[in-house]
Amino acid sequence: MTYSYMTHLVCPKCGKTYNPEEIHQLCVCGSPLLVDYDYEKLKHEWKKEDLISRQDNLWRYHELLPVKNEENAVTMGEGGTPVLPVAKMGEQYGIPALFMKDEGLIPTGSFKARGAAVGLSKAKELGVKKFAMPTNGNAGAAWSLYAARAGIEANIVMPVDAPVTTRKECAASGARLWLVNGLISDAGKMVGELVAKEGYYDASTLKEPYRIEGKKTMGLEIAEQFGWQVPDVILYPTGGGVGLIGIYKALVELQKLGWIAADKLPRLVAVQAEGCAPIVKAWEEGKRESEFWQDSKTGAFGINVPKAIGDFLVLDALYETNGCAVAVQESEIHTEQLEVASKEGLFICPEGAAVFAAAKKLRADNWIKEEDQVVLLNTGLGIKYADDLEVEFPVLEPGESLKIKGWEFGAIGRCGQH
Amino acid sequence: MTYSYMTHLVCPKCGKTYNPEEIHQLCVCGSPLLVDYDYEKLKHEWKKEDLISRQDNLWRYHELLPVKNEENAVTMGEGGTPVLPVAKMGEQYGIPALFMKDEGLIPTGSFKARGAAVGLSKAKELGVKKFAMPTNGNAGAAWSLYAARAGIEANIVMPVDAPVTTRKECAASGARLWLVNGLISDAGKMVGELVAKEGYYDASTLKEPYRIEGKKTMGLEIAEQFGWQVPDVILYPTGGGVGLIGIYKALVELQKLGWIAADKLPRLVAVQAEGCAPIVKAWEEGKRESEFWQDSKTGAFGINVPKAIGDFLVLDALYETNGCAVAVQESEIHTEQLEVASKEGLFICPEGAAVFAAAKKLRADNWIKEEDQVVLLNTGLGIKYADDLEVEFPVLEPGESLKIKGWEFGAIGRCGQH
Repeated sequence: MTYSYMTHLVCPKCGKTYNPEEIHQLCVCGSPLLVDYDYEKLKHEWKKEDLISRQDNLWRYHELLPVKNEENAVTMGEGGTPVLPVAKMGEQYGIPALFMKDEGLIPTGSFKARGAAVGLSKAKELGVKKFAMPTNGNAGAAWSLYAARAGIEANIVMPVDAPVTTRKECAASGARLWLVNGLISDAGKMVGELVAKEGYYDASTLKEPYRIEGKKTMGLEIAEQFGWQVPDVILYPTGGGVGLIGIYKALVELQKLGWIAADKLPRLVAVQAEGCAPIVKAWEEGKRESEFWQDSKTGAFGINVPKAIGDFLVLDALYETNGCAVAVQESEIHTEQLEVASKEGLFICPEGAAVFAAAKKLRADNWIKEEDQVVLLNTGLGIKYADDLEVEFPVLEPGESLKIKGWEFGAIGRCGQH
Repeated sequence: MTYSYMTHLVCPKCGKTYNPEEIHQLCVCGSPLLVDYDYEKLKHEWKKEDLISRQDNLWRYHELLPVKNEENAVTMGEGGTPVLPVAKMGEQYGIPALFMKDEGLIPTGSFKARGAAVGLSKAKELGVKKFAMPTNGNAGAAWSLYAARAGIEANIVMPVDAPVTTRKECAASGARLWLVNGLISDAGKMVGELVAKEGYYDASTLKEPYRIEGKKTMGLEIAEQFGWQVPDVILYPTGGGVGLIGIYKALVELQKLGWIAADKLPRLVAVQAEGCAPIVKAWEEGKRESEFWQDSKTGAFGINVPKAIGDFLVLDALYETNGCAVAVQESEIHTEQLEVASKEGLFICPEGAAVFAAAKKLRADNWIKEEDQVVLLNTGLGIKYADDLEVEFPVLEPGESLKIKGWEFGAIGRCGQH
């Protein structure tokens, strides 16, 4: 049985192809590379029904993943995250069919686990021993821990303002971590220098072609979870944008296999924060690429990416699906995070809260219609950002009575913005 | 179709039965109550094969859960946590077939979600509007968030030393939370007073009969995940002990249904910390109940329970399965937590790390044999305790070079013990 139907790597800009048995990073033209599969053969040899008895993790789609030998799969049970109704928020927004896919329920607590699992499995298969990458926190944590499991050395550079929890995860994993008093773009330059000097594998966003294959499994799962009838709209918090590119790639691949209808794709929405919205600006101007966003700033740290290397792929996905890009305010992010926790019981990350705020806005603008089936991606656990939530509670001595009346405590605000 | 086959509540001490359509807390004799089902009818009407096409969450076992009406199920996709090989630790310990069930991959980041989901679903079904409970942190966080989803008011009392993350979760959910400068036993007394005064539903450990039904799904899952061939040993970090009681109940129920062999149960192991080991002391002395543990103290905060109301049920389960109870040192807990993260990529909670340390010890004592198939319960995410891990990393300015040589940073120790 063929475990993977991968055929080659291909450049989406210049069309050049590469042998996937060798290590490749970017195309010679500077573009990220994508993985291609033998869709014709897959169409004949792989059936939806084959999935029924498989385990509920992302490896159930191994035919459409790049790892050739099952033994190289580095797994901690990632994938199979639930799609949950968020009916109270849906009622508030006027979107009865509102759902949230919860990417907090995954190893390392963020959707970055998908990219790390597939990316590092393939790195292991290719014989990689050491890698380096810049990160806004969650990707570094995920890659560090999966690297520990794979037996590969991790070298990570992270802004000093990234969520502290993520540096604890790196520490626990035994990764080498540097903090930089700057942005992910600064971290990226330092990694670039290290890679050039030491010859390490470059695991920066889209500089290796396999992370996106892990991320695309979110799209495969959404299609399967909706019974192969795709929803109308998917909203995604967009920093590097790999998840959105991956979801789009997944859905197009499912169309090639005939598993979903050829005439409908969900409208994909890139959600950003007003303090860092290069994709939104490019989309509003009808451009195919974004410009570097000066002095970017947002508490939704994962989407603080001033210029994404895959911006053109994100914008393509928006244009091809009649989607859009939308920016939300910091105050809306904070409000929706607590609204969703107190109404739905879901303590989501700020990036996920940005997506809720965007859904509210797009419904108010009537871009989302009342009858639309809408899926919001929550990309990680709120508790990874728990330091950001300032709270106050009464402290009693043993034997004191609990006073119900006049109780006014709880979340009292935010610590100083990162 | 019958959604639940629950028949009645029964007291394991005096045998008195109760109507499950009414709210009941403890038996009049003071013992916790357990839920009974119509096992004979279930045996004829429910087949293992029915599970195959069901979603991978704990509601797949709804026939053996107490919620009568599916609409009352308050769910965030809990259950279906993976059983992962931990081969490197297994090699180190001399246990080739060593597995970890990862209860971090569940809403609210700890196994407490199972009890909260089923407990609050049933509370909702019974018309409960407000409840109160003491907690060591994770249960309070889980019950607060599930209560928000259920639309029930949560009143929580927690030691001020409990992991700070859990109070942030309570805050986000909008629960009423009080901190007490003492132990969970002090919190319990304060809750008792509130319950008596205000008539709130008492959701303290085993003072309502349904939390355990949620917890028992860990046992159902383990049996199913091992293909209905139960493993030889299951190790569980024991505070209140509900999970262990639940796993034992589940396995006995599966024997009644004939889904697992009648002649084999896993040897169940209660793991405690040396600073709080009442169950271990009782087991070593061959007693059926434990004594209050004075001045209890451990960084594995969830198992800092000086006297468990269900201690006799825990001890029964140990005696009935030829299991044992074992205490581990604080230093062993710390060591194993970092070992497991850096070798297996799994950043587990201190309670989970205690279980690893116990497996190592029991193997060294030859209580666990080399050929035993062993399952370790990791009850939650390490990141919920991230504050406890002290780390140090270099902070650079943008443009500085990353120095590989002489890099000596990472986890440098523990903050002061709670």
